[in-house]
Amino acid sequence: MKFYIFIGSPRAFKVMAVANHLGLDYELQQLDPTNGEHLSAAYAAVNPNKRIPTMEDEGFILWESNAITQYLASRKPEAGLLPPDERARALVNQWQFWDISSWDPACASIVFERLVKKMLGMGEPDPAKVQEGEQNFHRYAQILNDISRGGSL
Amino acid sequence: MKFYIFIGSPRAFKVMAVANHLGLDYELQQLDPTNGEHLSAAYAAVNPNKRIPTMEDEGFILWESNAITQYLASRKPEAGLLPPDERARALVNQWQFWDISSWDPACASIVFERLVKKMLGMGEPDPAKVQEGEQNFHRYAQILNDISRGGSL
Repeated sequence: MKFYIFIGSPRAFKVMAVANHLGLDYELQQLDPTNGEHLSAAYAAVNPNKRIPTMEDEGFILWESNAITQYLASRKPEAGLLPPDERARALVNQWQFWDISSWDPACASIVFERLVKKMLGMGEPDPAKVQEGEQNFHRYAQILNDISRGGSL
Repeated sequence: MKFYIFIGSPRAFKVMAVANHLGLDYELQQLDPTNGEHLSAAYAAVNPNKRIPTMEDEGFILWESNAITQYLASRKPEAGLLPPDERARALVNQWQFWDISSWDPACASIVFERLVKKMLGMGEPDPAKVQEGEQNFHRYAQILNDISRGGSL
């Protein structure tokens, strides 16, 4: 099993953390998007979105980090990360879709404005985008806080 | 089974289309976000994100439209919308996560700038946001086109 990853991305950490937790063997093919390595024709043949990460498992190619984590979990069902009960599995989906629709964009916007732009010499943060990112971050972080205080999952 | 929906949203069409295809009975509780009906305390108790749609099935509450469609599919496995094979199911996930990470935001941005703003008297479209939305729309539409011309799913 091979992961095409950018080692600095939380979407890479996510895939590697699940694989490590499950004790799955994998090799890494690291791509550095700051050098445009994800834009090559070779990588576009693996993932036409030219986004990272992508997984390859004996010829089976899969992209989208959360889809990859579910597939990894399905390789070791006994670990219980992906419950067989359809309602419990639906809640895994709910939170992973919420991650992509709500949480990840809020965090990614702040990280891009405050960190990535500086690293890549792309100029100063856009205050309006930072403010919008922070508002969304606090809005969604509150939902996680409420749940961890005993709300329903 | 009950769907809390905004009848004008593609995320409502998606849920209703799958339920109709599967022949599932449901009732609708319509919310009009242009009147702020999704912001009530009663609805926040169902979906703390105050986003639409949400599903309620005999006390089981689920949000995120794509999670809802998978749950509906799991209610009628014989219809084959959600294949039991883990690789095939991973590809359903891949495309549904791609929808939320890539396709939906590109389309939603154009619809918001060109249609929603006009409907709600929110001023003129922001040309930079329209241009960004159109670039993303064409980038991701190309991927759908390539697949429909015989690329791999």
